Amino acid sequence: MKWNNHFAERASRMTRSAVRELLKLTAQPGMISLAGGLPSPDLFPMERVKEAIEFVLGKAGKRALQYGETEGVAELRDWIARDFSRPEVPLKRENVVITSGGQQALDLIGRVLLNENDKVIVENPTYLALLSAWRLLGVQFLPVRSDANGMRVDKIEPLLQQKPKLIYAVPNFQNPQGTTLALERRVSLVELLRKYDVGLLEDNPYGELRYDGEPVASLLELDARLGTSGDLDSNVIYVGTFSKVLMPGLRVGWAIASEEVIEKIVRAKQAADLQTGTLSQYIIGEMIRDQFLERHIRVLRQAYRERRDAMLVALDRYFPNEASWTRPDGGMFLMVTLPAHLSASDVLKQALERKIAFVPGEEFHLDGMGRNTFRLNFSNATSDLIEQGIKRLGEVLKSMLTSASRG
Amino acid sequence: MKWNNHFAERASRMTRSAVRELLKLTAQPGMISLAGGLPSPDLFPMERVKEAIEFVLGKAGKRALQYGETEGVAELRDWIARDFSRPEVPLKRENVVITSGGQQALDLIGRVLLNENDKVIVENPTYLALLSAWRLLGVQFLPVRSDANGMRVDKIEPLLQQKPKLIYAVPNFQNPQGTTLALERRVSLVELLRKYDVGLLEDNPYGELRYDGEPVASLLELDARLGTSGDLDSNVIYVGTFSKVLMPGLRVGWAIASEEVIEKIVRAKQAADLQTGTLSQYIIGEMIRDQFLERHIRVLRQAYRERRDAMLVALDRYFPNEASWTRPDGGMFLMVTLPAHLSASDVLKQALERKIAFVPGEEFHLDGMGRNTFRLNFSNATSDLIEQGIKRLGEVLKSMLTSASRG
Repeated sequence: MKWNNHFAERASRMTRSAVRELLKLTAQPGMISLAGGLPSPDLFPMERVKEAIEFVLGKAGKRALQYGETEGVAELRDWIARDFSRPEVPLKRENVVITSGGQQALDLIGRVLLNENDKVIVENPTYLALLSAWRLLGVQFLPVRSDANGMRVDKIEPLLQQKPKLIYAVPNFQNPQGTTLALERRVSLVELLRKYDVGLLEDNPYGELRYDGEPVASLLELDARLGTSGDLDSNVIYVGTFSKVLMPGLRVGWAIASEEVIEKIVRAKQAADLQTGTLSQYIIGEMIRDQFLERHIRVLRQAYRERRDAMLVALDRYFPNEASWTRPDGGMFLMVTLPAHLSASDVLKQALERKIAFVPGEEFHLDGMGRNTFRLNFSNATSDLIEQGIKRLGEVLKSMLTSASRG
Repeated sequence: MKWNNHFAERASRMTRSAVRELLKLTAQPGMISLAGGLPSPDLFPMERVKEAIEFVLGKAGKRALQYGETEGVAELRDWIARDFSRPEVPLKRENVVITSGGQQALDLIGRVLLNENDKVIVENPTYLALLSAWRLLGVQFLPVRSDANGMRVDKIEPLLQQKPKLIYAVPNFQNPQGTTLALERRVSLVELLRKYDVGLLEDNPYGELRYDGEPVASLLELDARLGTSGDLDSNVIYVGTFSKVLMPGLRVGWAIASEEVIEKIVRAKQAADLQTGTLSQYIIGEMIRDQFLERHIRVLRQAYRERRDAMLVALDRYFPNEASWTRPDGGMFLMVTLPAHLSASDVLKQALERKIAFVPGEEFHLDGMGRNTFRLNFSNATSDLIEQGIKRLGEVLKSMLTSASRG
């Protein structure tokens, strides 16, 4: 049977992510990959994982392997509720749902809130897999420019006249740019939410990975400060994940929101996959119980700070003057901008021949922008490899710029 | 903010499953639960799980905790492809995608194939969480009656005139009835698929749990025998899961289909949750590598056969003559039918007071049928508890029938 004639309309919008396809290529021997968004496997706390699993299977083995509640394991939800509670943000277990990674939270929130043709404000560029997931829902993206201080919140108010359903923001060390939304912009943003009765999805996978400066209050917290009710009364839905601070292979993330939103997400999740893996949730629960996670995050910050610094030093040293790049205070990525006449996809072809990989920026962008940009990851290679890789890439860029100026 | 005014239209169709809500109630001490669809935790192969995890973390620890391909771990896909290959069903890795439990496969297949208002033929009654998932897509269900030999395939041809997009079938030990689709009906069914150019989703979570009689060829296989191409040319998409034969808490299932369908499912999965848990897949892979799974399935068959027999004996002994029930050859469930004037929900209220739980059949049905039916699970309680539970329930039924005949 020719299934092509039987697919749903939305299937025509199901595209493969070039980023994830690239992951397959970069497994070649000798390849220095600055593509992907992988946390460093050398920093996985392997011994602690083994201990945690042994403890979990010994203590709660049968429960850890059995079906569980769609909402997630109660102890884990309680821990998240406590960890994010502030005087102005009174969180209960009912404000939290565990999801199969942060990505599932994004997908389910879209399914709960977005009708076809709804408008959604996003930073341009923004997280690729958010665009992929919500494109399937048939939404229309309203892009907002950004600069070194994150999304240009002053450009949002005119767009709010178009009655968007939701704003999507990654305020800390955004993927792909590594930029952080400044506090005064956050304050303006949450005021706009209330003024225009619009919701915002705060996606914060990288927030704990800060290497310089002080943490900035979350949009969830800033928005809740404007609330009046005793319960969480928020225009913000917050999404987090253990993928970047522990291990992505367990697939455990979460959403925090007012109870009515969580209730709908739970119903959507029941239809989508019944529940997130029970064993995975128990392993994570065991690793946060005794503050191991806090200590581990300090280790990650130290290691990733060194790698980021190695990349910034190498960029200054080896990249041509015609290129510019962001200087992130945290996270895993920075973004390079080339002269407008250079295409990052063309650069990638030559770079792969020199065994160095990165992700062209075009897919992260809307409105056909970003052809001359690319994303570099600094979490998944050692400082030495980062330096070598940037050196090779600088040589490729210089030779292409020379040919271009000759041509 | 009042999120209620902001939900998508589909959110109004997001209902909570009474079955899964009931799971929470049945955790009370002293409760005998014949509700739920839980495999017996006493039969989880705990020692083998511990060995498998130790081996996996020792051998492939970093890979097992890292991001992996959306399609799933290659070795696991290869094993499934080999296990389901027949001369007429030549399967490759590309015909298999790993999903987060069988439920996610159902959801993703719906997203790939079904537009709003598309028609889908289902057995009446059928698997509740399929109805929940596809209701969100706004499809219209065309119910087909069933009897002791499964779906009445002779009733399907008139419905095919209505150009349905898909047929959904659980041919082995169906949930909730425990009935199996007879071979001659399977043959007729796959002939209809080709005649009307319509696809079928074969959902087979219970097929390995057969306690009497010989296995019947799958619809996938029967359909492929009609094909002509060297590659899999099938009108059937097959969904399986490790949840019932190993452990549901790992959330690993799969779909088998022609490559073009798998390709679309992979794209939908990338947007939905990036990938199924890597560690879970490695654990399962380790447990199938040395034929442990086959041996374990024999243990399960023996144990569940005894429990099914205990239930059938107790039903014959304790249930009133006015009730009838199915006699399944496998699986985890059977279905009881009461006289039409008795409501299973009313029975449940009195049963819960006597600390015995089951699932009323109404939610599994379409067209308002099934109010006088309920589902009994025989996999998750010991034979002794099953006998006690059926005895108590028989008493409740007899007393209600007496009151009803007096009233």
